[in-house]
Amino acid sequence: MMTRRIADILKNGQSDESVKVQGWVRTKRELKDFAFVEVNDGSSMANLQVVLNPDLADYATIIKQLNTGASVEVEGVLVESPAKGQKIELKASSAKVFGEADPETYPLQKKRHSFEFLRDIGHLRSRTNTFGAVFRVRNACATAIHNFFQERGFLWIHAPIITASDCEGAGEMFTVTNFNLDKVPRTEKQEIDYTKDFFGRPAYLTVSGQLEAEIMAMAFSNVYTFGPTFRAENSNTSRHLAEFWMVEPEMAFCDLQGDMDLAEEFLKYIFKYVLENCPEDMEFFNQRIDNSVLATADNIINNQFERLTYTDAVKLLEKADKKFEFPVSWGLDLQSEHERYLAEEKFKKPVIVTDYPAKIKAFYMRLNEDEQTVRAMDILAPKIGEIIGGSQREERLDMLEKRIETLGMDAKTLWWYLDLRRFGTVPHAGFGLGFERLVQFMTGMANIRDVIPFPRAPLTVEF
Amino acid sequence: MMTRRIADILKNGQSDESVKVQGWVRTKRELKDFAFVEVNDGSSMANLQVVLNPDLADYATIIKQLNTGASVEVEGVLVESPAKGQKIELKASSAKVFGEADPETYPLQKKRHSFEFLRDIGHLRSRTNTFGAVFRVRNACATAIHNFFQERGFLWIHAPIITASDCEGAGEMFTVTNFNLDKVPRTEKQEIDYTKDFFGRPAYLTVSGQLEAEIMAMAFSNVYTFGPTFRAENSNTSRHLAEFWMVEPEMAFCDLQGDMDLAEEFLKYIFKYVLENCPEDMEFFNQRIDNSVLATADNIINNQFERLTYTDAVKLLEKADKKFEFPVSWGLDLQSEHERYLAEEKFKKPVIVTDYPAKIKAFYMRLNEDEQTVRAMDILAPKIGEIIGGSQREERLDMLEKRIETLGMDAKTLWWYLDLRRFGTVPHAGFGLGFERLVQFMTGMANIRDVIPFPRAPLTVEF
Repeated sequence: MMTRRIADILKNGQSDESVKVQGWVRTKRELKDFAFVEVNDGSSMANLQVVLNPDLADYATIIKQLNTGASVEVEGVLVESPAKGQKIELKASSAKVFGEADPETYPLQKKRHSFEFLRDIGHLRSRTNTFGAVFRVRNACATAIHNFFQERGFLWIHAPIITASDCEGAGEMFTVTNFNLDKVPRTEKQEIDYTKDFFGRPAYLTVSGQLEAEIMAMAFSNVYTFGPTFRAENSNTSRHLAEFWMVEPEMAFCDLQGDMDLAEEFLKYIFKYVLENCPEDMEFFNQRIDNSVLATADNIINNQFERLTYTDAVKLLEKADKKFEFPVSWGLDLQSEHERYLAEEKFKKPVIVTDYPAKIKAFYMRLNEDEQTVRAMDILAPKIGEIIGGSQREERLDMLEKRIETLGMDAKTLWWYLDLRRFGTVPHAGFGLGFERLVQFMTGMANIRDVIPFPRAPLTVEF
Repeated sequence: MMTRRIADILKNGQSDESVKVQGWVRTKRELKDFAFVEVNDGSSMANLQVVLNPDLADYATIIKQLNTGASVEVEGVLVESPAKGQKIELKASSAKVFGEADPETYPLQKKRHSFEFLRDIGHLRSRTNTFGAVFRVRNACATAIHNFFQERGFLWIHAPIITASDCEGAGEMFTVTNFNLDKVPRTEKQEIDYTKDFFGRPAYLTVSGQLEAEIMAMAFSNVYTFGPTFRAENSNTSRHLAEFWMVEPEMAFCDLQGDMDLAEEFLKYIFKYVLENCPEDMEFFNQRIDNSVLATADNIINNQFERLTYTDAVKLLEKADKKFEFPVSWGLDLQSEHERYLAEEKFKKPVIVTDYPAKIKAFYMRLNEDEQTVRAMDILAPKIGEIIGGSQREERLDMLEKRIETLGMDAKTLWWYLDLRRFGTVPHAGFGLGFERLVQFMTGMANIRDVIPFPRAPLTVEF
């Protein structure tokens, strides 16, 4: 008999159907005349209740083995369940235990465990309700992202992970090397002899695939990256990872307006997709983790995002009847408290702030006619702050060269990036979304280390 | 007016429709009374022919600017084309040039360029017919992979890129460090002081996500990775990359049979998907790159893969009426020439070789009852050799511990991997597919550096 996934049985199973399931025991209740075992196979939050009767072969042995965490295969017939909250249960005609889980040593017992403790057993935590839900929602977010772009004819392009350029000085970079660190080769002048390293020059882990995405957009018009990026910053916070996934669409023939339109449509699409595909998991987050996640999703999906310039945002903040910790003044970057004020208190919905001062933004952003601001946009969401950052890119060769010079950057290493402006340049734009921030936002999980299977952070590299 | 993609216009465009297109000039032909310009926007191999008449505003200037590589926006009306091979063309009512491309300096002129030359201008090569087709097919392969697994309820899981474990000793690893290589910190004993590095211990770029996929399969039953992996091997060949993408499904409650069934279904699905979604690009590869790619795709889709044991394969090779360069003998690994003989000459279709000697396979593969062979499987394809490698995993704690000891590996660093066998272990299996090998196979491209946007290899890290 073919194995059926429990999610399918709970949704479509009919009384009297014969089924086979395979999964892991979540709980066991032994009564006088029979036993209940809750089996989960990861396909859904809900377990399938299995009823075992003493007429089952090896009943006593099997019941003894079926502790929390044990793996089991059960065949039997679906019957209507007298219990509340479930339509059907499985009356076992045979049961086979694959592997036991000793209650004395198996760390995941029925009691609640702290997320800190579960991080230390990252190889087992996905077997809990919370992490089961997190990674199903994470998968749904990822699928939504691919579907959104593929439906619109965007190509998924793989930006390189190892790179010799630092994109935008966006952050500290990890070094990638083939050197034996015990004896790094030296030149006669006692400098590091990079010609002897694997790539013949210093190499790093990428902080962004944007510049390469721009290359590809100049051939395919619409592309997106979806891959890992890195920061070597020593930030031991609940919002930072050393390794995280980023989504970066890039569109040729697109201005800031088109960029904002796409980003808004994109966020709405993902939230809708997850609500439709993981209703049970989202309900769980709302009940157990953060009772605002469903309202937040609703807010995203059903509101037109507010759009205003940085200059107007600063005016609003200056007038605000609220004391901020950090100063507000034209030219200073917005702090998290400012962003949250705008999204949560002032507009009570997502806000897109545009046209930031050039000085606080990256070199590749298109300079406005005022020569003070650039065509940048940040999407600020209630509860989380900045979720998306994007811009129209500077497509004019002379302007870009001037900017690079002003900033004291090395134009030589950017020869190919400048070539894109030299040959068939076009207005283009794009944005970046930190994937784990999105999953945090979606689920309400407080620590970013709890929305990625195996987090990397300072002193954290286990599994 | 909304811009329409050229692929859509060529497929669905009707005479008399007004359209706007944006793209890059591929060629220009000036005749006495008018000019033809072929415009491409990356959405398809085929260009849209644009007809420009002298009554157009700024006709002379625009025609002068519209050289190969220039970017342009054209509005006009679709008309039936008198030319062969195209149904419609665009009669321009207005044209706007965004960026020129000086014919004196733009490297991509109409003549054919070698792939070697194009690798040096990796920021421009996607604008050629060949690389346009490669990256559209690459995107279609990637999409097919996600669709295949998502339709079957597999979760996409992100295995870590930075790792402290070396999986299986599968290959040389790159070091990831935050050290200033000029002054690597030392302990009092003059050893490298890894406690001062970012992760507090040596860290590397992953060679495989399999072990982490096993963790996740023990919670969700069916999962897959699709992400970058790395090899620091100094192989300057047309088949090796230092950075490449790998697909690794892992299934709980699955044996070698189920593993082979899934892998065969998977390959057939991808080939079908690409033929259906990129027929024009595949036709191009068949005509210009390798005239066997369509036949090969057909061979994969329409044949049941041959399955035989390693032991039987060795017998066949020993009896073969063919002189091999490398020896054939039970216990030796199969060489490429042997694999190709089996797939191309003996069976003339994909072959799955199973149950290899334990000695030549990785530690985690399940030992057969004969205690000599393991439940491994390799899929060998005509023209390319090994395309997929997989196995049923050793799920028995005692057997796995014995194997680790025999091989002199360090069980301590694998504590979490062993825990998976300690708590609720189940039979499970999976396989790995090198994504770039697949794209090579699909397109017939001879050099693996030509199927990834920005190849990383010894001394190669530009863009």
